[in-house]
Parts: sequence; C-alpha cells; structure tokens
Amino acid sequence: MSDNSHNILIIGFGTVGQGFFELFNSKKKELGLQNVRISEIVDMRYGHIKSPGEDLLKNLPSQKTPPVDVLKVIRESFCDIVCEFTWVDFKTGGPGYDHIKTALSSGKHVITTNKGPITTHYDELNELAIKNRAELRFKGTVMAGTPSFNILKLLPGAKVLRFRGILNGTTNYILNEMSIGKSFEAALRDAQQKGYAEADPTNDVDGFDSAAKCAIISKILGWPHDFNGIEIKGIREVTAQEARNGTKLLVYGDPEKAYVKPVKLPDDDLLSSIRGVTNAIEFEIDTLGKIYSVGPGAGRIETAQAAMTDLLDIIS
Amino acid sequence: MSDNSHNILIIGFGTVGQGFFELFNSKKKELGLQNVRISEIVDMRYGHIKSPGEDLLKNLPSQKTPPVDVLKVIRESFCDIVCEFTWVDFKTGGPGYDHIKTALSSGKHVITTNKGPITTHYDELNELAIKNRAELRFKGTVMAGTPSFNILKLLPGAKVLRFRGILNGTTNYILNEMSIGKSFEAALRDAQQKGYAEADPTNDVDGFDSAAKCAIISKILGWPHDFNGIEIKGIREVTAQEARNGTKLLVYGDPEKAYVKPVKLPDDDLLSSIRGVTNAIEFEIDTLGKIYSVGPGAGRIETAQAAMTDLLDIIS
Repeated sequence: MSDNSHNILIIGFGTVGQGFFELFNSKKKELGLQNVRISEIVDMRYGHIKSPGEDLLKNLPSQKTPPVDVLKVIRESFCDIVCEFTWVDFKTGGPGYDHIKTALSSGKHVITTNKGPITTHYDELNELAIKNRAELRFKGTVMAGTPSFNILKLLPGAKVLRFRGILNGTTNYILNEMSIGKSFEAALRDAQQKGYAEADPTNDVDGFDSAAKCAIISKILGWPHDFNGIEIKGIREVTAQEARNGTKLLVYGDPEKAYVKPVKLPDDDLLSSIRGVTNAIEFEIDTLGKIYSVGPGAGRIETAQAAMTDLLDIIS
Repeated sequence: MSDNSHNILIIGFGTVGQGFFELFNSKKKELGLQNVRISEIVDMRYGHIKSPGEDLLKNLPSQKTPPVDVLKVIRESFCDIVCEFTWVDFKTGGPGYDHIKTALSSGKHVITTNKGPITTHYDELNELAIKNRAELRFKGTVMAGTPSFNILKLLPGAKVLRFRGILNGTTNYILNEMSIGKSFEAALRDAQQKGYAEADPTNDVDGFDSAAKCAIISKILGWPHDFNGIEIKGIREVTAQEARNGTKLLVYGDPEKAYVKPVKLPDDDLLSSIRGVTNAIEFEIDTLGKIYSVGPGAGRIETAQAAMTDLLDIIS
C-alpha cells in the first residue's frame, strides 16, 4: 500500500502466535512499523479477537469460546497480511492449508511457520500466490529464525550443487544423549520432559519433520523432490554404539536425489560438531564451496523472529 | 538509473579484479544484467583498459604500461559504480582510500573488498557516501563472499549483544598444523607455499587482519571500537601445547570492548571445530541466542562473489 499501512490477521494463537504478538509489539517502534497493526486474531481456544491491545497476553480469555468460521473471517477481513500459525499435519496439510489457500485467493499475503501446508501443497500454493499477486513466505518452516534457505538471497548468482543438514533438534538431542550413555527411551523421555519432543514423537524420531524441511528446501531450489518421494529413515534403530561414533540424522538433497537417514559423520565434518537441539545447514555452491548456517531450529521467540523477517520482506 | 543501465570501473586488476571480471561475465545473463557493463579497468600493470571484451583475460597486455592518473580517471569516468580492488594498507588506508574518496565525492557508488580504507577511514567515507547519495559496500572485507555481517539483514529487529569469530584463515591454518605437530615456522612456510600467507606475514600472524575485521563489524553495529583501540595479540607466542589444546585466534566484540587474541576454546564451542583456512562468525542476538555463519574467508572467486553480492544490492 502506498501509505505503508498494513493490517495483520493472526490465525492460531498458541506458542508461536503469542511469541510473534509479543515480538512484534516490542520491536515495532524501532523498526518503524507504526502503521502496521495486528488487528485481528482467530484461535480455537480464544475465538475471534478484534483490535487486540498490547496487553492482550495478560488478559487472555480463560473460557473456551464458541467455534469461529475461520475461512469466513479470512475472506471478510480487511487485513492484507495473514499469519498462519496453526498445527502441523504432514498428511493433508491440515487446516493451515485451507487457511492459506483462502487467504491467497482473496489476494492477502501469507506468512506461515507451518510446515504442513508448504510440504504437502507447495506447488499449488505458490501458483495461487503468483496468480493473486500475493506473497507467500515461510522462512520459519526451516530452522526457525536462524538464516537457512534465505542466506541464498545474500549470494546472487550462486548455484547450489547440494545441501546437507541437521534440521531436527529433537533427534539431534536424543542422539547426543545416547552418545553419552542414555538409552533411546530414556533420552526420548528426557526430550519430552524438556519440551523438545511432543507426546507423540513420530514426526521427529521417524524423520518426517526432517523430510518436510528437505522437501521445502528442494522446492525453493527448483528441484523435483516431493515429501512423498524422499527416502526417509528415522533414528529408532540407531544403536548406542552408532550414536557414540558420531551418527546423526542427516538431511541430504541434490538435483537428483534427497534423503533423510542416520549417517555416521567423520569427526572433521562440521556437522558432526552440532550438539543438542541446535540445527545446521550446509550448502555447497559453485562460487564458495561449502558454507554453513548454524543456530536454534525452534522456540517461541526464535520462530517469531522468522515471521518478523518475512513480514519485513513483504512490507519493505 | 531509471533504465537500469550501469557502467562499472574496476580499479586494481589482480586476483580479485580478474576474479570479479570472470564471475560477472559468467553470471550476468542469468542475473538479468544485460544493461550492466564493465566499461573501464585501471591497473598499475595493465594501464587504462577501455571497453574490455569478455575475452580480456586471455589477452592481457604483457608489457607494463605507463602510469595512469587514477584519480583523474575516476573523476572523469562516466561510470556510476567503482570497484576498488587494490592492495591493503592498514596504516594509511593506501591508494584505495583516495580512490574511494574520489569516487564517492563524484557521486559514484563504491564496492570494495579492500579492508585498508574501511578500517582506517570508515566514519569519513560513510559520511561522504551519505552526503553524495552514493552507496559504499564492502561485504568482501569480512569472510569474502561467505555471509558474515550481512546475515543481520535477514534478522530485522534483532539486536546483536556480542560477536566472536575466527576471521583469519592463515592463522587458523597455522594453529591447526601446529596442533598436529608442526613448528610455527614450518607451518608458516607451509601456509606461504600454499598461497595462504604472504611473504611478509605480519598482517596475519600479528593479528592486524583479524583486528581490521573486528573494527569493521563493530562499526557496522554502531559500536565505538576503532582499529587503533582494539587490543591485539597475534599467534607468534602460541606454544605447541596450546595449539594442541584448542587455542584459536579469537576475534571478540561487544558494545564495551573488542579484542583479538589467542584463546583456548572448550571442545563444545563450535568455533573450536573450525579447521584449516575456514572462517566462522558467531553473533549472539536477543531473539535467537547464538547463530553462526561458516565458510571460506578468502580466494579469487570467493571474494568476487562478495563484490557480486554488493553489486546486486546496489542496482536492485
């Protein structure tokens, strides 16, 4: 918009939604975003909140509200930017898929940190965005706010030959704990207690989360690997001995193939030094050889940073 | 320019200048730079070359040419972008300082990979750029084309609390070789034979090159550390034992202080895993904690990539 004013609709007000709300309000002044407002929030628990005050997080309604017709809200909202922060579903894309489709179809820009819709429907959503002259941004789907595929914007003309990564903090944490003596089960329980792993750890330990990120990066690079075409092996069969020897859950992609599987990395491989829940990506490119970006891959404010990065990209 | 046409003047046609010439010509088509030309080159050895053909590198004049009045060429050139690729001088800024000053004063944008002028005269050159509405870009002064301070562009609103880095490949290579049994002298000779170290290795082994990068990053972050105010200790006194124990030449900066000195890094510090001539930088920021960028810090095409990154920033 020519007056640089923007209105944001947040869908999904859990950890990431609230983190974004907090980060946006704390940074908007120094970023010169006085004309950008979070004007609506829709959430299963909190219902439809209009014109939220900056103190919203202290005054969240405690009672569950009646269901809201989210697609109707999206269509009828005067907001020009929709932030989709609902839960991940790798099978269908989940409600996030419908939210994003509806937003793009009505010409609204979309920022999401939700891997489900991007993994399952990238091509369709990307075409829809182009057709409706809307932006579709999803930095937060890979390594939260830590620079990942977006570092390629800093390398105009560079050609990616292949990439490798440790893109799931939960499994890296579990393998790390196994390497110092814990059983898989004990390490998993530990990860769950620390909030790294969910009650149903399938998406992490069976490699689906890593494969989703592999598919997303491949799509961005114009490579043909769909989520369903990626060879996936998780960490359930990794032995204590293998964990001690430096086995990591490796994500790999090149124009010909892509996989996720436990791989023993040599000691002089930088990826072998990635500890705990930290994520890392290596791009091998024609002009520089191997470059790496390393940092957190999850977290409330860490993921909110990704949405801020996308927001500034869209409005500037 | 509204028609998106640009003309580039290259000053200094050694390793970096020739690397940039080659990279620019190989990438210009896919980057849509048909209206961007390298229209002039000035070099001590090759003189003043006008409208060079793409096959220039195969047809470089073998005889030394008479001296050229470079400042006059800069002033009178119709080019709008000057690439400064001459040699480093940390005492005065060298001829590069005069070249950049003259270019900015005549309203021309400047791209440089030359640490000398930026280290010694950052404030003055920056003000001159602003006053003349010209861009001054110097990505290549820190970690060549590998993302370094420019990753902060991917993190709007994020506040840097401190940074640490291994920003000199030569000393990291020497310490690495010492850690596996070589003497300092043997490792230095080896580095010189491999082309990592210069005949006079002072700038590298005494820490000046690292300190220059420390000063440049500090300036970008708005911190008060000048090159001359940075505590500098090189690697000449590092013992074999210290090298084996993981001592690295560490660059550190926060708003209060900045230094370059050999530091023993613990094994679980990612910077301790940086081998050979590879460079690495860690930024600790409010929204993400510690993030890292790792990759080559020197090289012909690697440094040319930095100038390409700056070029695309300026013209797009």
